[in-house]
Amino acid sequence: MTHPYRSHTCGALTSAEVGETVRLSGWVHRKRDHGGVLFVDLRDHYGLTQVVCDGDSAAFGTLDSLRLESVVTIEGTVKARTEATVNPNLSTGAIEVYARAATVLSKAEELPMPVAGEQEYPEDIRLRYRFLDLRRETLHANIVKRTRIIRDIRNRMEDIGFTEYSTPILTASSPEGARDFLVPSRIHAGKFYALPQAPQQYKQLLMVAGFDRYFQIAPCFRDEDPRADRLPGEFYQLDLEMSFVTQEEIWETMEPVIQGVFAQFAGDKPVTPAGSFRRIPHAQSMLDYGSDKPDLRNPLIIKDVTAHFEGSGFGIFAGIVGNGGTIRAIPAPGAGAGSRKFFDEMNNWARGEGFSGLGYINIKDGVPGGPIAKNHGDEQTAALIAALGLGPNDGVFFAAGKEEQAAKLAGLARTRVGEQLDLIDKDRFELAWIVDFPFFEWDEENKKVDFAHNPFSMPQGGMEALAGQDPLSIKAFQYDLVCNGFEIASGSIRNQHPDLMVAAFEKVGLSQQDVEDRFGGLYRAFQYGAPPHGGMAAGIDRIVMLLCGAQNLREITLFPMNQRAEDLLMAAPSPAEPKQLRELHLRVVEPQKQGA
Amino acid sequence: MTHPYRSHTCGALTSAEVGETVRLSGWVHRKRDHGGVLFVDLRDHYGLTQVVCDGDSAAFGTLDSLRLESVVTIEGTVKARTEATVNPNLSTGAIEVYARAATVLSKAEELPMPVAGEQEYPEDIRLRYRFLDLRRETLHANIVKRTRIIRDIRNRMEDIGFTEYSTPILTASSPEGARDFLVPSRIHAGKFYALPQAPQQYKQLLMVAGFDRYFQIAPCFRDEDPRADRLPGEFYQLDLEMSFVTQEEIWETMEPVIQGVFAQFAGDKPVTPAGSFRRIPHAQSMLDYGSDKPDLRNPLIIKDVTAHFEGSGFGIFAGIVGNGGTIRAIPAPGAGAGSRKFFDEMNNWARGEGFSGLGYINIKDGVPGGPIAKNHGDEQTAALIAALGLGPNDGVFFAAGKEEQAAKLAGLARTRVGEQLDLIDKDRFELAWIVDFPFFEWDEENKKVDFAHNPFSMPQGGMEALAGQDPLSIKAFQYDLVCNGFEIASGSIRNQHPDLMVAAFEKVGLSQQDVEDRFGGLYRAFQYGAPPHGGMAAGIDRIVMLLCGAQNLREITLFPMNQRAEDLLMAAPSPAEPKQLRELHLRVVEPQKQGA
Repeated sequence: MTHPYRSHTCGALTSAEVGETVRLSGWVHRKRDHGGVLFVDLRDHYGLTQVVCDGDSAAFGTLDSLRLESVVTIEGTVKARTEATVNPNLSTGAIEVYARAATVLSKAEELPMPVAGEQEYPEDIRLRYRFLDLRRETLHANIVKRTRIIRDIRNRMEDIGFTEYSTPILTASSPEGARDFLVPSRIHAGKFYALPQAPQQYKQLLMVAGFDRYFQIAPCFRDEDPRADRLPGEFYQLDLEMSFVTQEEIWETMEPVIQGVFAQFAGDKPVTPAGSFRRIPHAQSMLDYGSDKPDLRNPLIIKDVTAHFEGSGFGIFAGIVGNGGTIRAIPAPGAGAGSRKFFDEMNNWARGEGFSGLGYINIKDGVPGGPIAKNHGDEQTAALIAALGLGPNDGVFFAAGKEEQAAKLAGLARTRVGEQLDLIDKDRFELAWIVDFPFFEWDEENKKVDFAHNPFSMPQGGMEALAGQDPLSIKAFQYDLVCNGFEIASGSIRNQHPDLMVAAFEKVGLSQQDVEDRFGGLYRAFQYGAPPHGGMAAGIDRIVMLLCGAQNLREITLFPMNQRAEDLLMAAPSPAEPKQLRELHLRVVEPQKQGA
Repeated sequence: MTHPYRSHTCGALTSAEVGETVRLSGWVHRKRDHGGVLFVDLRDHYGLTQVVCDGDSAAFGTLDSLRLESVVTIEGTVKARTEATVNPNLSTGAIEVYARAATVLSKAEELPMPVAGEQEYPEDIRLRYRFLDLRRETLHANIVKRTRIIRDIRNRMEDIGFTEYSTPILTASSPEGARDFLVPSRIHAGKFYALPQAPQQYKQLLMVAGFDRYFQIAPCFRDEDPRADRLPGEFYQLDLEMSFVTQEEIWETMEPVIQGVFAQFAGDKPVTPAGSFRRIPHAQSMLDYGSDKPDLRNPLIIKDVTAHFEGSGFGIFAGIVGNGGTIRAIPAPGAGAGSRKFFDEMNNWARGEGFSGLGYINIKDGVPGGPIAKNHGDEQTAALIAALGLGPNDGVFFAAGKEEQAAKLAGLARTRVGEQLDLIDKDRFELAWIVDFPFFEWDEENKKVDFAHNPFSMPQGGMEALAGQDPLSIKAFQYDLVCNGFEIASGSIRNQHPDLMVAAFEKVGLSQQDVEDRFGGLYRAFQYGAPPHGGMAAGIDRIVMLLCGAQNLREITLFPMNQRAEDLLMAAPSPAEPKQLRELHLRVVEPQKQGA
């Protein structure tokens, strides 16, 4: 036993080592005094070992006086536990170590937060003392699981011939998309690098440079205002790109990877089998689920019932339909048998969300109730119920308005009804592709056509579609991967034709010169032999959250910033030295002086 | 053959596919017209296939008119090459594909630089058209090799129980060390994040947080002026840290990893076996090799001969010794048999390097020659030669001056003599640890003691040494790994005791308050149970350069910046929009106005 700190880790000892003299090092996790005998749970990265210290042991004084979370080396003898005290939930639960000697390696001061146990603790304390927070069981396990998930993703990608390339982190500002983090240049006064929002252009350049099957666990940076589902600052994505590829090949390539990762870390929860991910056109997803990231564990399907309300006796809906509006029906199976309160509360909820309300019919023992049924007309109501396939004690809600609004409300209502009626099987992972996203969308604010998603995507129909079709009807070879109501990946086939790129940008009001100014590297590259290529990017953080069952990104992130984009542990951001500002040719303009 | 682009890659076809109809896609690498028959080398990421196009093929017109580097899909029949035309150096060298149809996927404009062949090309063209440069054979192969080396490192680390954790990239400025890149905060006016120069503090915090065996292929950022051996901006290191560890355990753990990686990618070149890396104390390395990163392939050993010149007849050396100076001898085996010119040129070289000169004795047939031998005295010269073990036709150089200067000149002369006499076996990798680095050094400029290397290292002798010893005599548990004259890694056991940390910083003139202000997170962490820990960081770029035999970092880097820290492909850095500057509370101060 020449190692000064340990012969074994705190997770290693079993009944095979009974009788051996061992040395362990770790943190004092818990301490109990049972009538002059000390029981110490000694913890390290690998596990927990119960150390017993009799009153006459030389280690007693040392261990007795030690605060929790101090670091100590224990020397002692491994003994079998009595049958009654064996702990089957602990890898070392068959033994305990009788301490003969204890050496303190590092004394802990009084703790600002406890490590043992899983009490809630204020976020600022947790972040300021993140090194203590990270010792806690769940967070420690989540972080380890995160690293395993990422390793597993890497291995799966490499096993199918992908190669990981690291693309630059100090790069150019990308004028489309979110807000960049800028990095001032010292050598070039007044100029700035930007941190990449994604390696989009670089991965496309890699394909043009003749590489193939690129991937990267890529750090990405967006200077966006805090959102519940995105930490300030940086996040990670599984970024990938392939050459000479169709979107079908991308889907077929990635389904086994994604399914494999989920199955590996999902525990007992079933995962949609690879090869059978549904491919749902965007328009159909908006109709059926009122969302482009539907939770397919929810069995409810929305129906369009606009035609039913043309000239209906229910004047509000008739009016909406008459003005070109849309009515969508959300079934609520079995809800008709219950109380009207459920229906009224749904209506109130919809108003609370800023909609004008949620109409409904509640069928009780075959009799349709509520104001819509009353006014719509008996025959018409019967036809509607038949068309929706409703049973004698079902309910149905109606979302009405402009198509986009009706679809959105219907989608939210579908989720809420599913949750309230407990229709969603929480214990599985349902994966599907949403495909054929629109290429353009109407920008109401600026009254012009804009790119709906990725301007680098290939429009379906190519130059012909751009030339002859209503832009808003053009679809892109663009797709998302969704899981349980979350978008977990997004991708497309790219537009690698310089003339088609210019034509697409012209539709949103940008000239060839604009394209050259903003995306010069990529535009130039497309002039010299560009292969057809495409790919996607999957959100690592979201996938880890799903697989850890975590509700907050902070529970799966090592050193997160708070919602004010501050690192409380390292005290970032912080003022720069005057010398640094001089070197960077910058002066800080205090906010109150902005108007001057 | 339903895939629109390829049934096989351009590196796949062998005689097994003779007779098959295939589809290939790739770049037109070379094109030759042999009397109405076109030979096209079609290239993709995987290889090269020779395509033959007869004059009567429907593909002829298309291929004939196509510029090099255009992207094309070929359909045709695989035929065996005649025995005389088989190319054993090509994976597809047994076959050629007779083209029946060709579809152009992307036409190339006239190329600003050629892809086929390996001509030298001006750097600015290569970087501006990096996507073409990267298609070239050597660079493409280097980049692929780089990715394989990194993958191999990852696998080896994971196989021995290390876990990869990603640490934050937007973090706090670290006031010690090199210059930081700063990132202005939008939310906190006048405050800045910094990009990490290394994840040093985070990896130590990880150990304090109870993790173990951390590693990371870590992006690091230093805003330093251009240097030949460092690209501006970012670089990668294999960063690692272990808990409850001694430096010997770190060496034993990492030798198989480093040796394994080298052996895997070194081709036929021998690599120092794991378990037998020499461990050379820093002071001895400075004496024997005149360097803390010795090239151990060079067999020459420097000797200290100061005592020989006390009161010597060679007045210059006697004077130097009398003033407390040092004389070091660098043997030049067999050089005495050659011309005096070699010795005089070495002397001139030393003067050119800024030293006062390099004395020498050239022994020819047992007779020592040169001014030193003449004046030193026959008996004394004979004793000197005997002490150095020189043969009858050897030479020896002398570096004289203050110890540090003499050691430095001796080291440079050792390298030059080794090269000039062709004593260095270039075809092997010689790995060794340089250990026991001094903890402090004398800062001549500021006339004070400063940290020699890492302020977070553990001083040997601990508090006792700090209290009682001349600071400049204290060594640290600090070590480098060297290979063939390059430092490829550096590491230490860390100082995890808050009081010892304060005591160490006091020696360089910083107070406890300074420590708390600058390294508050780490200092705070050490109060709450910190394990003994240590690790190292290895330079990925340097290792890849050694294993690729590359002389320039640009030959192993995907998208490097130029020496003016500009990305010519993406046009970074670039001016920010006024709106961006407003949001960041910044104003640019033009350099000429700095004095105003």
